[in-house]
Amino acid sequence: MESFTLSKIATNNGHGEDSPYFDGWKAYDNDPFHLDENPNGVIQMGLAENQLCLDLIEDWITRNPSASICTPEGVDKFKETANFQDYHGLPEFRNAIANFMGKVRGSTVKFDPARVVMAGGATGAAETIAFCLANSGDAFLIPTPYYPAFDRDFGWRTGVQLLPVHCYSSNKFKITRAALEAAYQEAQDANINVKGVLITNPSNPLGRILDGETLCSLVSFINEKNIHLVCDEIYAATVFDKPNFVSISEVIESNNTLVQHCNKNLIHVLYSLSKDMGLPGFRVGIIYSYNDAVVSCARKMSSYGLVSTQTQHLIASMLSDNEFIDKFIKESSRRLSRRYEVFTNGLGEVGIGCLKSNGGLFFWMDLRQLLKEPTVEAEMALWRVVINEVKLNISPGSSFHCSEPGWFRVCFANMDDATMNVALERIQSFCIRRFEAEKPAKRNIIGGRTLG
Amino acid sequence: MESFTLSKIATNNGHGEDSPYFDGWKAYDNDPFHLDENPNGVIQMGLAENQLCLDLIEDWITRNPSASICTPEGVDKFKETANFQDYHGLPEFRNAIANFMGKVRGSTVKFDPARVVMAGGATGAAETIAFCLANSGDAFLIPTPYYPAFDRDFGWRTGVQLLPVHCYSSNKFKITRAALEAAYQEAQDANINVKGVLITNPSNPLGRILDGETLCSLVSFINEKNIHLVCDEIYAATVFDKPNFVSISEVIESNNTLVQHCNKNLIHVLYSLSKDMGLPGFRVGIIYSYNDAVVSCARKMSSYGLVSTQTQHLIASMLSDNEFIDKFIKESSRRLSRRYEVFTNGLGEVGIGCLKSNGGLFFWMDLRQLLKEPTVEAEMALWRVVINEVKLNISPGSSFHCSEPGWFRVCFANMDDATMNVALERIQSFCIRRFEAEKPAKRNIIGGRTLG
Repeated sequence: MESFTLSKIATNNGHGEDSPYFDGWKAYDNDPFHLDENPNGVIQMGLAENQLCLDLIEDWITRNPSASICTPEGVDKFKETANFQDYHGLPEFRNAIANFMGKVRGSTVKFDPARVVMAGGATGAAETIAFCLANSGDAFLIPTPYYPAFDRDFGWRTGVQLLPVHCYSSNKFKITRAALEAAYQEAQDANINVKGVLITNPSNPLGRILDGETLCSLVSFINEKNIHLVCDEIYAATVFDKPNFVSISEVIESNNTLVQHCNKNLIHVLYSLSKDMGLPGFRVGIIYSYNDAVVSCARKMSSYGLVSTQTQHLIASMLSDNEFIDKFIKESSRRLSRRYEVFTNGLGEVGIGCLKSNGGLFFWMDLRQLLKEPTVEAEMALWRVVINEVKLNISPGSSFHCSEPGWFRVCFANMDDATMNVALERIQSFCIRRFEAEKPAKRNIIGGRTLG
Repeated sequence: MESFTLSKIATNNGHGEDSPYFDGWKAYDNDPFHLDENPNGVIQMGLAENQLCLDLIEDWITRNPSASICTPEGVDKFKETANFQDYHGLPEFRNAIANFMGKVRGSTVKFDPARVVMAGGATGAAETIAFCLANSGDAFLIPTPYYPAFDRDFGWRTGVQLLPVHCYSSNKFKITRAALEAAYQEAQDANINVKGVLITNPSNPLGRILDGETLCSLVSFINEKNIHLVCDEIYAATVFDKPNFVSISEVIESNNTLVQHCNKNLIHVLYSLSKDMGLPGFRVGIIYSYNDAVVSCARKMSSYGLVSTQTQHLIASMLSDNEFIDKFIKESSRRLSRRYEVFTNGLGEVGIGCLKSNGGLFFWMDLRQLLKEPTVEAEMALWRVVINEVKLNISPGSSFHCSEPGWFRVCFANMDDATMNVALERIQSFCIRRFEAEKPAKRNIIGGRTLG
């Protein structure tokens, strides 16, 4: 009734909460699984959350009481910390973040604390960089499939558009120069001003790192077009198998013959502690830009979403403890790898394959053979069965703007082992039933194929 | 060199950092006063920060170790807290905020936890409400003098304009219906769409509460025009003298005959713990709207600047302790009152008056008699002398869009007693020198007059 007096942004549905991606969350919220109390509830596999290593952090906190301003050992720092509101952030916080960013990238490059800018989580960081780089109506190219909430993060309040660069399973969703050029040309033809390319590395939802060659090709592309490259590297330390992660920083700082005359002013990195440290509640978002003007502008904008100094103070201590960090990253990889192997091998046993992952908190499951036909409608029909009957909230590829129906993102690190086993059993028995009932011929090709 | 590839917002100087208000901060940053180490440095009186009661909070924290997730007593809550990222916030946090908001308003009205929306400090809260209510190019009316950073908070990234409602010392800067109508008409004539009125209560920079009659008149005005009223009440508990604070909530919820048929959907409150609790580093901003659509939209937008769950958890405990809160508010008022009396009486002794304050962390000092002429240029000339020679960073009225030259905002709660004494001595001796040197006749009217 009153909505006519609100803004266009408030009423344009640009938040995107009415998508299957978020619908699945609501289905989970309405009937959440609990091992004892609600064993027939929906298991949440749509949330990329890392719960596997929080015990290591609890242990560290217990051993380091002076890291907190709320302990007898640390309370003498309370006043100065609670009162600190400089948008540069606590110097020790920026130092620790720069140190950690280097460490999780294998110490191949150094990060300058003066370029570390705070934001309200990765969500706030993405919006801030969009506000810095583009005007309303401008566009960023983004390879598909991509994280559904980027439309909100990058575009809701900025008016910036995301234009898909279509990638396909035939070459493991590789981002090719041809696809980039096609998307760029399409925008030109539509008279849309392209301001840059946005990538996630490791990829969400593919759960794989981008190879060095692809990164070099991307850098060449954006240099030639004189547009920006925004690299969301929030899963940089969440890599659990070879090949090793290569950051954009490494590519542009190495003497790589493939990347000549790179204009560093075009390169911007987004980071966060939500995934790599499993601390989404702490809202530590980071913008690291090689462009001085962007650093300066983003820092001014950070006033809208600074990190609590209580949290800055704790993080500063924790991420300065190199011994702990080394152990944490190693152990986190080990646990993620084990979880991934158990789950994907279990799927393979019933004939379900997936794109081979080595990073992130999810994998990209191939249910194309279960579709009645290769359409988005058939994918959504299958998704509704999975959520309503199998009681698993996995996310359909179409909500990631995937160009091929039949792929689903499955998150595997936001639950304990027992819940994971229930989830695996559910999907295994569902697939077996489906194969037996609908397509007996398919049983001949048992054994899930892993792509990649 | 590269700025042409950035956005208009990044390059439009809308942040407003190049104003005297922020210049004064830089002067302080370059030469900060320290009682022992830099006794001739600049004393910061431009920062509305409450350092007077943090010892009470330290004491509470020491006595309540389980309120923190980083103590042996509280660490068992670490996992669930660090992982919690729902934009509704921790239920206990919203309950505690609603309880506290009621308490600091004398428990005359109740606040509904379901309407409590988080934001990244008051800065983030102001921007969020602007994004919800107005389109780029739309305007809000705002009585002068007003908080300089509102132009940034409300307008930098939203494109929303603030249009002044001119108020004058002749009636103690009262917001009159005539002034509101004049500002509204001026906007109409310029074809600008007015979406609402923005007020601070207690007023920043005046340091006074708005009386009930003025609030009723404002409510009538916005109802008649069918526009919004945004009430920034971040100093609601920072009231240290009679008359008592009256919130907009009290006005619209009471059976006040002056306010009939109030459309509550037009009323929105901004709140924060930065001033009332002295915790600016914790970035606890709150939007409390009586409009369901705004609550829903603002909550979605809160994803860009959620409060750290580490901080939510601590605040939830602290603000649920009614005994502590009662004692804190009372003691805070007592200390602020004392500080205010000492400072303004000291100024009165040398013939400097001020607008009578009863709230906020500052007062509005009248240096009109020291201006060479009643112009903004003369005010700025005097301000430069004060900052460069007297070494006090007070803020000139022109940076608050004051319609009369010669007024200055003086913050008095962001320093210890010893520093305050140095500041008082400096300004006293400066005024005495000025009166003696320039206008001997003025000595006849010694004794600062307090207006109000």
